[in-house]
Amino acid sequence: MAHVKIQVQAMNDFCMDVYQRFGFTEEESRIITDVLLLADLYGIESHGAQRLVRYHKGIASGMIKVHAKPEIVYETPVSAVVDGHDGMGQLIGHYSMNLAIEKAKKSGIAIVSTRNSNHYGIAGYYAKMAADQGLIGFSTTNSEAIVVPTFGKKAMLGTNPIAISVPADPYPFFFDAATSVVTRGKFEMYRKAEKPIPDCWGLDAKGHPCTDAATVLTNIDKKAGGGIMPLGGSQELTGSHKGYGWAMVSEIFSSILSHGLTSNHTIIDGKGGTCHGFAAIDPAIFGQPEQIRADLSTFLQELRDSPKADGQDRIYTHGEKEIFAVADRRKNGIDVDVKTLEEMKNLADYTGADFEHYFGDLLK
Amino acid sequence: MAHVKIQVQAMNDFCMDVYQRFGFTEEESRIITDVLLLADLYGIESHGAQRLVRYHKGIASGMIKVHAKPEIVYETPVSAVVDGHDGMGQLIGHYSMNLAIEKAKKSGIAIVSTRNSNHYGIAGYYAKMAADQGLIGFSTTNSEAIVVPTFGKKAMLGTNPIAISVPADPYPFFFDAATSVVTRGKFEMYRKAEKPIPDCWGLDAKGHPCTDAATVLTNIDKKAGGGIMPLGGSQELTGSHKGYGWAMVSEIFSSILSHGLTSNHTIIDGKGGTCHGFAAIDPAIFGQPEQIRADLSTFLQELRDSPKADGQDRIYTHGEKEIFAVADRRKNGIDVDVKTLEEMKNLADYTGADFEHYFGDLLK
Repeated sequence: MAHVKIQVQAMNDFCMDVYQRFGFTEEESRIITDVLLLADLYGIESHGAQRLVRYHKGIASGMIKVHAKPEIVYETPVSAVVDGHDGMGQLIGHYSMNLAIEKAKKSGIAIVSTRNSNHYGIAGYYAKMAADQGLIGFSTTNSEAIVVPTFGKKAMLGTNPIAISVPADPYPFFFDAATSVVTRGKFEMYRKAEKPIPDCWGLDAKGHPCTDAATVLTNIDKKAGGGIMPLGGSQELTGSHKGYGWAMVSEIFSSILSHGLTSNHTIIDGKGGTCHGFAAIDPAIFGQPEQIRADLSTFLQELRDSPKADGQDRIYTHGEKEIFAVADRRKNGIDVDVKTLEEMKNLADYTGADFEHYFGDLLK
Repeated sequence: MAHVKIQVQAMNDFCMDVYQRFGFTEEESRIITDVLLLADLYGIESHGAQRLVRYHKGIASGMIKVHAKPEIVYETPVSAVVDGHDGMGQLIGHYSMNLAIEKAKKSGIAIVSTRNSNHYGIAGYYAKMAADQGLIGFSTTNSEAIVVPTFGKKAMLGTNPIAISVPADPYPFFFDAATSVVTRGKFEMYRKAEKPIPDCWGLDAKGHPCTDAATVLTNIDKKAGGGIMPLGGSQELTGSHKGYGWAMVSEIFSSILSHGLTSNHTIIDGKGGTCHGFAAIDPAIFGQPEQIRADLSTFLQELRDSPKADGQDRIYTHGEKEIFAVADRRKNGIDVDVKTLEEMKNLADYTGADFEHYFGDLLK
């Protein structure tokens, strides 16, 4: 698949333009754009420009309601349940995480569980919001069911990522990972490349490991059975029940505590219902927050400095690759699939934005 | 390896006897025995009777101090840091989790981070303490470094289990899993059986996958390099960085927040320093706790009822196997390796307990 480079500023300006044309305020468009851009800057391609089409379709179909405002339906000094009323996931996520941060600044810890939202982009964005303010941040989301529980053959769980970020120097601990072995995006990349997937990624309709990405994706779309394996594969021998367990933890903090829909009931027949979970912890409640930050920084450095396996030249700590990716993207631009750029052209045409103003003749 | 069955009551009475002979009070011995017994009842053989020898050696060497009392060194209404002063891990764990539970009952949530402890048994015991009282429970611990970070060849992390339990019917969600692909105990079982281990479990001294359990274990003991892989194996393709990330989360809640020792610095040269993390959350802070319990119970049942993979006849939810194991052990006794029973005989001789009073001629 052909790729082109687009500049970060052009991508930013384009997003700001189209979201305001959809009816979002400038401030709302700023948040949505920030979440999308961070994914592209961090090199998480599947969640940046490539997701524009998903939001385009969601808004066009009415699954995402542009003018919905998130509402606190229950709260205590350390918690809240938020109803997103089917609004834009990024706005609901940003609102909910800010609520967790505000409460944590006063009470030391807070958990916010949020229902009736939509796809909110990378979970890590929200964890980072807390870490940027010196707090420990946590975020998770459920999604449509595409992951199969251990010994099952029907997708019952989402890829249910969990993100945790903790302040450290020279860069924070930033862990953002699907609880499945890989995300759907990886399957799509292998399908495009017509390469077989590893036999520990996907299951066919009968629940057998399957190395053909197209088969797994087609079955997922048709709800014909099979899907993606949890982290740890499909056998207890390789820890499948552990990935399945982490997916459950995501589900509990998102859909269960918020009285929302579990993954197996979300995004069916045009209804959304995605749920998220957020938490913030002020390290000061353990005394000496500077020492905590210094201790974590030391440990991260010890890991990076520890002996490398034969054939490897570095050990990464979580979030380090993202720091390098940002520097690269800001200098060299964002790598975008031509198909994604075509989707962006459609989005421009739909909203009335001037595609060529931002991207010139990249499509010609 | 030959096994024998011992009755739960005999095991209970034996433990109560030897721990009191070590100098623990009856109440302290009750707690230690309960933690050990729960592992055996749950079928987590590696953490029950088999661990008696570890505590025996720890007490004899002075790494575990019988008369140490845990101390709160910092606290807020939602948090505490506990110094275990090198006491028995189970007592420090029980004390710390009770503190989290008490605080959560008042404040809604609490996190306790604990340093200078010792091996505390199964992480799940402490999560269960909270769930038994209607709260969401969380517990984690670091351990000596036997797990290798992605792309490394030196063990820098413990098996760092994380346990989470949430009330539900007919039985709770109870997830207790090492963040490594398997625990050291699995390697020991394969070594005894002289069977090759799967190539996604262990690394040799150079950081290459190794299928010989004895090689990996010998290298671990000699600190010669290599060790156990994180959940997800040793490659990013299979999610190694995710297991490594979860091990880090364990480390942050145990050693970092408590200002304690990270796994790579614990249990070296006769010093201990194991750290734990605990949390409790009252579901009432999200409103309608009964509804939360009912919703989780429904979702767990939907998972159990969902279609099974070819060749599988059931899908388990986390904690279900443990419920069945308890019924089996109470009826049929606990399966104990003869080598473990010999260790228990040594323990009896060391403390002056009457081995044959509890176990008759099982060793003859």
